[in-house]
Amino acid sequence: MNQDESKSAYRGRALNVLTQAGCEVGDIIRIIKEDKTYEGILIPRSESSDDKHVVIKMKSGYNIGVRLEPNVKIEKVGKGIKPAFASPPLPPQKEELPKIVIMSTGGTIASRVDYRTGAVRSAISASDLYGVVPELADLARVDTQILLSTYSENITQKHWTQIAQAVAEHIKQGVNGLVIAHGTDTMTYTAAALSFALQNLPVPVIVVGAQRSSDRPSSDAATNLIGAVKAAAYGPFAEVVVAMHETIADTTITLNRGTKVRKCHTSRRDAFKPVNGSPIARTTSDKEITMLTTDYRKRDSSAKLVLKPNFSEKVALVKFYPGFDPSIIDWYAERDIKGILLEGTGLGHVSARCFGAIENAVSQGVIVALASQCIWGRLNMNVYDTGRDLLKLGVVPCEDMFPETALVKLMWVLGQTRDLEEAKGLLKTNIAGEFSPRTLPQEEQINEGGM
Amino acid sequence: MNQDESKSAYRGRALNVLTQAGCEVGDIIRIIKEDKTYEGILIPRSESSDDKHVVIKMKSGYNIGVRLEPNVKIEKVGKGIKPAFASPPLPPQKEELPKIVIMSTGGTIASRVDYRTGAVRSAISASDLYGVVPELADLARVDTQILLSTYSENITQKHWTQIAQAVAEHIKQGVNGLVIAHGTDTMTYTAAALSFALQNLPVPVIVVGAQRSSDRPSSDAATNLIGAVKAAAYGPFAEVVVAMHETIADTTITLNRGTKVRKCHTSRRDAFKPVNGSPIARTTSDKEITMLTTDYRKRDSSAKLVLKPNFSEKVALVKFYPGFDPSIIDWYAERDIKGILLEGTGLGHVSARCFGAIENAVSQGVIVALASQCIWGRLNMNVYDTGRDLLKLGVVPCEDMFPETALVKLMWVLGQTRDLEEAKGLLKTNIAGEFSPRTLPQEEQINEGGM
Repeated sequence: MNQDESKSAYRGRALNVLTQAGCEVGDIIRIIKEDKTYEGILIPRSESSDDKHVVIKMKSGYNIGVRLEPNVKIEKVGKGIKPAFASPPLPPQKEELPKIVIMSTGGTIASRVDYRTGAVRSAISASDLYGVVPELADLARVDTQILLSTYSENITQKHWTQIAQAVAEHIKQGVNGLVIAHGTDTMTYTAAALSFALQNLPVPVIVVGAQRSSDRPSSDAATNLIGAVKAAAYGPFAEVVVAMHETIADTTITLNRGTKVRKCHTSRRDAFKPVNGSPIARTTSDKEITMLTTDYRKRDSSAKLVLKPNFSEKVALVKFYPGFDPSIIDWYAERDIKGILLEGTGLGHVSARCFGAIENAVSQGVIVALASQCIWGRLNMNVYDTGRDLLKLGVVPCEDMFPETALVKLMWVLGQTRDLEEAKGLLKTNIAGEFSPRTLPQEEQINEGGM
Repeated sequence: MNQDESKSAYRGRALNVLTQAGCEVGDIIRIIKEDKTYEGILIPRSESSDDKHVVIKMKSGYNIGVRLEPNVKIEKVGKGIKPAFASPPLPPQKEELPKIVIMSTGGTIASRVDYRTGAVRSAISASDLYGVVPELADLARVDTQILLSTYSENITQKHWTQIAQAVAEHIKQGVNGLVIAHGTDTMTYTAAALSFALQNLPVPVIVVGAQRSSDRPSSDAATNLIGAVKAAAYGPFAEVVVAMHETIADTTITLNRGTKVRKCHTSRRDAFKPVNGSPIARTTSDKEITMLTTDYRKRDSSAKLVLKPNFSEKVALVKFYPGFDPSIIDWYAERDIKGILLEGTGLGHVSARCFGAIENAVSQGVIVALASQCIWGRLNMNVYDTGRDLLKLGVVPCEDMFPETALVKLMWVLGQTRDLEEAKGLLKTNIAGEFSPRTLPQEEQINEGGM
């Protein structure tokens, strides 16, 4: 990093304080604030940052930003190296450890900041990831593969197929587990897709991302990746799960079933929440994987993977809202769409104004399935007239699947068969834990649905 | 209720047990289960119910269902009256109490079960509500008005206008507060719409619903309605809020700002959750309203309501997902749509494949706004290339509004002006608490967005 970059990174008050202390980007500095002391490498900030904070990368690998209150003192500890993101040489592999493949598809966990513009670019390779988190060498023998390098909003059904096929190839080669590094925006869509595509798994497949990139303060990249590798290497389960922070603290990583987890916050580290289910396991700071349920598919190296990697591109999600124009349903039906996932309201409703268009679509052989925009809870289309009318029209209720998982399942179902009845049958079959069992507490909730 | 209906209501084991005890629907019965005793009127169940539960309406007004375990004993206490849903004579009005209007629009809170089919019908009138919950007479002088009688999935912009105008009319007549009984499916869309349409309010406007109808076990209709009337009569605030259960218990009703609350469960009583905000107040079992913030608009009978009841019908919500076909955006632009609310991913992204269609729509004078399907959290379209590219194309980021509120706001904005720049200005202006203030904790979250 040259002097210009260093200057552009800090400005105003922060630059003054750092200049007075004789500190430049790359130096090791100590920040003393009341009874706390932070020590680490001074790292640059983006052009658009404020001038009130100083950011260091600590020995632990975590970054922290400290606000320059009047009581904050800064000392230069030493002329440091600048933070490096190039791949360091791989540490020696320990032969007794499980063999894991980390596949990189892009996203924040595989990204670095462009210090010039302040923007995050999807650039770091899987082997870089490994280099940045040397702890991995004590957990597993890690191979890395760059499969894709794209923001996750650009991922499509074709990529799901490609990822599933690559996983199958690695399993054939005899790995003990897989980690897929993925952008968080559409990570749960991919996790759901892999859950349907990879059946009868012998080993765990862990999808992991980061909400904050690895060279930024409070990055979750390292902890998430460590948790994911731990789960891939030692998890007793053989399912597709998402590994992300359980809370905003760095203490636990939860493993949620790929069909039952949703990104519920734009930026928080604990954005990934189970929906109509619970995490199946948790990793903590020790090497243990704590299973939180007994209802999971067991790891079994003799199991023969069944690969069903095809997804239909002729499926659309249509979200209902007040004032919704039903002719969008006609438009899709005319365009040879084979499946429509309606995102309805409440227990499973759309306006009566939509009935004609739905009837028309169904009569043309389109599967019209419905999930609730509430996200949580189960459909019950028998409570109100509207639900009953929709059932009569042939709408398929998606139980307690939230819309995104229901959409992915519909794409997968229509990638398996063109037979309408068979497709409907598959849609109603629990393939990968996408339906939760109906619960019936003794009192209070004695009836279904709206009760 | 005739004998046939009574017979059809219970069957199998439940009917046997009830017959042996000499109990018929309408009788007062006592159910003894271990150390608990429940007493109340035996009420009917739907045809589709199981034969393992008995449901009574207790003196408190709440219904409870008890499972017929072997240790359950049932006694007939007295020949009771059958549960009545016809309007009883109104109790005498107490002149010293605040004057409240309950407007009914339909939905579960204003519904009753058709015992024959088991379906819930939207039928009960506002005065019936009052009759069913006699406690209201001690809280306020209540007038009732049936404004609409429809399932809330059929509510459109025209109805929002009608409701806003009716509220304005009642305010003109000098009421101390208003309650709008509404179906829960689209209740928060209506609450958001009224928040924008009713400006400079002198009194509270409370939108209330029920997740479980008033003649079913564990109905929340009575407690929600009592909470709503309490808030309308005694709340020190003058805003549009939604009054619903805070938890699954009947102890507290929270009042959430109409722009900041979302139905997040298909059936639970505590389905209505604040999004990117906190409840502004809480009612408990006593008559107090506990304000939870100092940042609210004060009740002020001298304030002159500003009514802005128009909403554009030329606005569409388009949800993005993997495999999304951008030509839907072209289709809307061709149909003379004036505003599109894109439901993007993460911090504010859609696939690069959509850029052409967005550019085309913007060039035709369509306002393309964006909110995140994460629901929680704030957009930051400056972190990644995709966000920056979308901003350059003219996409308007909706801060921390979740998609449904952002959609309603766009409909309202385009109902106010046809001038593009004025509309964009309004969209970016905080009108009714729809934006939360940016928070900047001292450490950890020092940068914007993805940090």
